[in-house]
Amino acid sequence: MSATRYTYLGPAGTFTEAALRTLPEAATRELVPVASVPAALDAVRAGQAGGAFVAVENSVEGPVTATSDELVNGTPLMIYREVLLPITFALLVRPGTSLDAIKTVTSHPVAQPQVRRWLSANLPDAQWEAASSNADGARLVQEGRCDAAFAGEFAAALYGLEVLVSDVNDEANATTRFLLVGRPGRVSSPTGLDKTSMVVWLPDDHPGALLELLQEFAVRGINLMRIESRPTGEGMGSYCFLIDCEGHLSERRVSEALMGLKRICPQVRFLGSYPRADHGGRRPVRPGTSDADFAAASDWLARCLDGRGEI
Amino acid sequence: MSATRYTYLGPAGTFTEAALRTLPEAATRELVPVASVPAALDAVRAGQAGGAFVAVENSVEGPVTATSDELVNGTPLMIYREVLLPITFALLVRPGTSLDAIKTVTSHPVAQPQVRRWLSANLPDAQWEAASSNADGARLVQEGRCDAAFAGEFAAALYGLEVLVSDVNDEANATTRFLLVGRPGRVSSPTGLDKTSMVVWLPDDHPGALLELLQEFAVRGINLMRIESRPTGEGMGSYCFLIDCEGHLSERRVSEALMGLKRICPQVRFLGSYPRADHGGRRPVRPGTSDADFAAASDWLARCLDGRGEI
Amino acid sequence: MSATRYTYLGPAGTFTEAALRTLPEAATRELVPVASVPAALDAVRAGQAGGAFVAVENSVEGPVTATSDELVNGTPLMIYREVLLPITFALLVRPGTSLDAIKTVTSHPVAQPQVRRWLSANLPDAQWEAASSNADGARLVQEGRCDAAFAGEFAAALYGLEVLVSDVNDEANATTRFLLVGRPGRVSSPTGLDKTSMVVWLPDDHPGALLELLQEFAVRGINLMRIESRPTGEGMGSYCFLIDCEGHLSERRVSEALMGLKRICPQVRFLGSYPRADHGGRRPVRPGTSDADFAAASDWLARCLDGRGEI
Amino acid sequence: MSATRYTYLGPAGTFTEAALRTLPEAATRELVPVASVPAALDAVRAGQAGGAFVAVENSVEGPVTATSDELVNGTPLMIYREVLLPITFALLVRPGTSLDAIKTVTSHPVAQPQVRRWLSANLPDAQWEAASSNADGARLVQEGRCDAAFAGEFAAALYGLEVLVSDVNDEANATTRFLLVGRPGRVSSPTGLDKTSMVVWLPDDHPGALLELLQEFAVRGINLMRIESRPTGEGMGSYCFLIDCEGHLSERRVSEALMGLKRICPQVRFLGSYPRADHGGRRPVRPGTSDADFAAASDWLARCLDGRGEI
Repeated sequence: MSATRYTYLGPAGTFTEAALRTLPEAATRELVPVASVPAALDAVRAGQAGGAFVAVENSVEGPVTATSDELVNGTPLMIYREVLLPITFALLVRPGTSLDAIKTVTSHPVAQPQVRRWLSANLPDAQWEAASSNADGARLVQEGRCDAAFAGEFAAALYGLEVLVSDVNDEANATTRFLLVGRPGRVSSPTGLDKTSMVVWLPDDHPGALLELLQEFAVRGINLMRIESRPTGEGMGSYCFLIDCEGHLSERRVSEALMGLKRICPQVRFLGSYPRADHGGRRPVRPGTSDADFAAASDWLARCLDGRGEI
Repeated sequence: MSATRYTYLGPAGTFTEAALRTLPEAATRELVPVASVPAALDAVRAGQAGGAFVAVENSVEGPVTATSDELVNGTPLMIYREVLLPITFALLVRPGTSLDAIKTVTSHPVAQPQVRRWLSANLPDAQWEAASSNADGARLVQEGRCDAAFAGEFAAALYGLEVLVSDVNDEANATTRFLLVGRPGRVSSPTGLDKTSMVVWLPDDHPGALLELLQEFAVRGINLMRIESRPTGEGMGSYCFLIDCEGHLSERRVSEALMGLKRICPQVRFLGSYPRADHGGRRPVRPGTSDADFAAASDWLARCLDGRGEI
Repeated sequence: MSATRYTYLGPAGTFTEAALRTLPEAATRELVPVASVPAALDAVRAGQAGGAFVAVENSVEGPVTATSDELVNGTPLMIYREVLLPITFALLVRPGTSLDAIKTVTSHPVAQPQVRRWLSANLPDAQWEAASSNADGARLVQEGRCDAAFAGEFAAALYGLEVLVSDVNDEANATTRFLLVGRPGRVSSPTGLDKTSMVVWLPDDHPGALLELLQEFAVRGINLMRIESRPTGEGMGSYCFLIDCEGHLSERRVSEALMGLKRICPQVRFLGSYPRADHGGRRPVRPGTSDADFAAASDWLARCLDGRGEI
Repeated sequence: MSATRYTYLGPAGTFTEAALRTLPEAATRELVPVASVPAALDAVRAGQAGGAFVAVENSVEGPVTATSDELVNGTPLMIYREVLLPITFALLVRPGTSLDAIKTVTSHPVAQPQVRRWLSANLPDAQWEAASSNADGARLVQEGRCDAAFAGEFAAALYGLEVLVSDVNDEANATTRFLLVGRPGRVSSPTGLDKTSMVVWLPDDHPGALLELLQEFAVRGINLMRIESRPTGEGMGSYCFLIDCEGHLSERRVSEALMGLKRICPQVRFLGSYPRADHGGRRPVRPGTSDADFAAASDWLARCLDGRGEI
């Protein structure tokens, strides 16, 4: 059954798979590794999978632009969940390989900046080669095409490798954020600690447009959590923005802000409201912007129209 | 019948009466001059009159603070109409008085700045005395307590005076704006060229509050037409603001802005939406802020919640 | 000697005189009461007085528009000092007059709203008449033209009257703010707790201009203390703004903001930087906006231009 | 001589080399291909090269994050020139290879989205593999490790390949922007059509900080040309911003804005002011923000301090 199938960027043994398995529902889904982010999402678009699980940004390397571009372009998709996974690399080798025997090292390019310092300290002469995923790097080692691979420790067993060094990460607290993406559907109920994602295209030739866009949020007390510019493809200097903000589309402050964007921007793509994976940052909404405040103001307005604004 | 009675700042023969008579409905009302702006409005509050007609600002002298304060404080009232009246003064004297016989001149204090230059050029030695209204000044001349009064030409007949000089006004285009004020009631339908008035109290100890308040308008493309600060009476440095903005409370951009103010300010008093008396300034609403734009954005939002935002 | 002469709104015995006498330098000046605010200021303009001392606003009644208009229009003047004087009224009568013998009461119109509630409770039938000053009201009582006057208690002796009731004031903490105004001169040194006043004309036909004006202050962390709109005289709907802000023109955040206004507005009139009379509100400047922060940023910029921005 | 050496992302035959050769000074420099963006820039930092020439963004694929991260982190560098190069790909094969013989295709990952549609239409079954550069892809074809490579047409001769298909680009007007980067030095003189680049870190835990940052530009009439968020490495949700704005650091509106950022942000890295490569977009500066306006305002301020503001 396609609805019970989740695609993810494979092969098996990637951090993506490890993150996906932290979702309770993953236990009851068929998890299908695919070759690329577009492939994972196209399977969803084509109805061959109920969801696709893909990385969207890393706290060291930044956005996964393949994911951003899929969300921005083509048939619309919607985000239903996010997962944050701390990232530490293990250096995986064929059993028996020693550190000084390593001439070539591989990993996904996103991993490289996170191990670069370790590499220059410990394997200054090793040549680095790009793999299409960390797990694929492990496979290259298994096949003898490379001496060592940076990957998650969990990948060792899968590829018959051993962990030569563990906990390699230049940056403490490196984290990758993943999204569970599906076909657009009814937005699920707010949990009280939600996030809303969207893509916003700016009006042409309007220098202050980004500021105006941010003011739609600010005036309603909504904090932005992330803003990523992407080229629109219309030529150098033309950008759209992927934005994550606090709150859920069913909250009035959020819906009013999105309607504001919709009114002033040539295009807005709503990407979903979903529970936040970080539980630390719970902040009270700014005074005057809770749903209760909106409801009270709306009641007051109705009374004003009726000549009873002071009652 | 009290509902058919309109009070106005008397005595008869003031510019206020002249302005009031420009309203078609004035012909079928009992027009009652009273001694002060508060008295005019208190009659409405007490149900002894259906409306009160009072000056609110002059393009030379500025706000009529008695009117502002009545609108800000006490039992709420609502504005139903505005009238703009060009002001030119006549110098009224008892029949036969010549210019060089004038030792004392009177008028309402508001009139004085508008005739000051004329006075120093033509009657440099005359002593100016305050009258409680321009018509009252005419009465003082009639009673022989003063030699000349600045008042509307129409006051001459009423007080048995003659027009010695007409069209006295230091400033071309001096205009007074008057309001027809009543007890709060259902807001009448928009005419397409309306104005909305309100009083807004700022949150305490919040230096950027005025800016935030203005942004509630700006973000929704609403032009302010007037802002007047008034002391709250809570001590030096504490102000509230009387604001006139473009648009009608039943327009979404206006209602959303007012609800925004209501949510962030400790108090907002809605003073009415009513037809604009100036017909020249018809500007199209800013793109993205018409009621049609609001309705379209609202439809889109409903579709987004339902997973059909792109349709 | 004209430089040692200060004019003030007379006659003697007004609150203005009382406030003026709180200035240490008043002891060594010739204090000359004059008939009007314009007269007080014109004496300064004409070189007949070194300073003029005039009320500018009252915490109950609001602005003294005669003063505002003099500061806005005509030959420029500059503010050198401000004084805050708590206002309480005494009801002054000719010796022996009892409360029930009072048929007429007078005061300056500004005083009336502050005693209105007391009047309606204690002298509901007394007729109120305007005087050109509170002290002038006392004179009218002295001359027998009126039964009682609201004025400062200090006026009683001056006019041979007695205090029938003291401490009359509907609003606790009523305060009047006065300014010492002189011909423009070198701005005195900052005291660390200063205020800067100016008049700003908005660009024509630019709906967001007031917001932009306020942003010149906000972006530099400057709190506004007062904003008063005045008609420009160019017709209904055209205003300029008298603005008081925190800080001294010699502070960089203030000078940069004023230069910003000067660049975007058709006209800006600097009215002076002078010590604040309220000592309570000392707030630290917003982080990043002290003169030290400006100097550090300026040094950094010079290094940037020289390729040494990171040093 | 190291000063006359420019490094660039090699190998020879990349678009980078083609873009570099558009700079007149390239003719007199030793152009040295290196293996990575960090290597190109580290050679400059180490004094082994006078400049490094690297791609920074593509109008289809977006930022080259390796370049962004090098500019953000580590020993500071400065941008001296930018080049815009239209990008079209040629499909290069070993002489004699026909389209239906192609089983594997390679290119730099950045190229892939630009040829993806062409690939699925013309070579739907070919397997795509990543190369570390487009020229390196050509080398892989030369060595027989891959059947075809997308690269610039100019790479064919260099690697003994032939152009099977030319002008492949899914997006018309695809353009890559390159930067000439050097050690920090004196900023060169403005040309009248310049751009300024910087990195700005936001204050912690200050939700409105991005808006405030943009207001430093907006209040001075400066248009942003690009904003790219990069993770700070301090954990998920912490970003800095690479910003390109109109104007030159020696223009007052720009220097004042940068000093404003410096004052409110914990860190600002100036990356250079340099001539804009796009000549079409010459817009007049916003009224009130030219250097002449700044100079006039500054003169006015000096006169104000001296009591001669109205002269």
